[in-house]
Amino acid sequence: MTTGNDREYPFQVSVLRLGHRLVRDDRTSTHVALVSRAFGCKKIYMAYSDNRIVDTIHDMNERWGGQQEFKVELVNDWRSLISSWKNNAGDVIHLTMYGINLRNALPQIKIKSNILVVVGASKVPREINSMADYNIAVGHQPHSEVAALAVFLDRLFEGRELERCFKNAKMSIIPSQADKRVRLEKR
Amino acid sequence: MTTGNDREYPFQVSVLRLGHRLVRDDRTSTHVALVSRAFGCKKIYMAYSDNRIVDTIHDMNERWGGQQEFKVELVNDWRSLISSWKNNAGDVIHLTMYGINLRNALPQIKIKSNILVVVGASKVPREINSMADYNIAVGHQPHSEVAALAVFLDRLFEGRELERCFKNAKMSIIPSQADKRVRLEKR
Repeated sequence: MTTGNDREYPFQVSVLRLGHRLVRDDRTSTHVALVSRAFGCKKIYMAYSDNRIVDTIHDMNERWGGQQEFKVELVNDWRSLISSWKNNAGDVIHLTMYGINLRNALPQIKIKSNILVVVGASKVPREINSMADYNIAVGHQPHSEVAALAVFLDRLFEGRELERCFKNAKMSIIPSQADKRVRLEKR
Repeated sequence: MTTGNDREYPFQVSVLRLGHRLVRDDRTSTHVALVSRAFGCKKIYMAYSDNRIVDTIHDMNERWGGQQEFKVELVNDWRSLISSWKNNAGDVIHLTMYGINLRNALPQIKIKSNILVVVGASKVPREINSMADYNIAVGHQPHSEVAALAVFLDRLFEGRELERCFKNAKMSIIPSQADKRVRLEKR
């Protein structure tokens, strides 16, 4: 197993979660954050979120490792975030069912340095389409931003993100056909 | 584009959603159902669910096509469903972070005929681990059953499920770099 993606890829990926509606999207936003962590991203920016998701991620990092490898940050002004991202030669990729099909789009992406993947809930401001460098569709059927993010990252990292180990974990899983086996790590 | 997966694969895939908790898991269960539809499954069985998810899927099928290609069914006795599935030479695959890593597991699966993919919410009865033919982990970090299902299906169908077109759609998307373009289909 590798110990992270830092040395394998010449770019880093962060996620921006937009359009969260309180209560209704709580679980979905938590899933978006957990997918970002598990699938190799460095950070998730949450727009208009609440602190419970921050607490959940801190708890996951504490138990399963990754305090230094994955961060969550609340942002009030996501437009400024996108602008500064682009000013620093980063790429902004918006996942939307209206975009270019993933299979066709992925080979076209010329990654300059760092990627910001934007995932929305149901209601996303339309301007994001013109602000993004790429609008990419993980299929053209309605499904889930959680699924779209996971499949995009899985294809981008060619499956290797699922091999990563997080540092300073209190526990880790011993893969098993039928049991739940957990290894408690010595600190 | 193909017009469905029926002729391409010698097996069909259905999904069983377990462990749904009312309200808390509503959105997540809806996403599981939509992913099942969009990623090439024939049916989703919902245990202990409510009718709103059924209505959502019917609405999606009505607008985006697939009334004959994707079904949703509520089941009261999921243990009987699994038993009858196995009695009919079907494979039961449970997605769990404690299972065998997807990369190692996928080549080992000897598909007999039809696959039932079981995805749970937080609380899943432990007996499912021994009932399943395969317990497969989409990574060993906590994340999301929506993401796990999508990545599993994407790898199983080798990306081709995202190319499918549904029959009798009222509308479909015209892929676009920056716009939202929808084609209204003639009936």
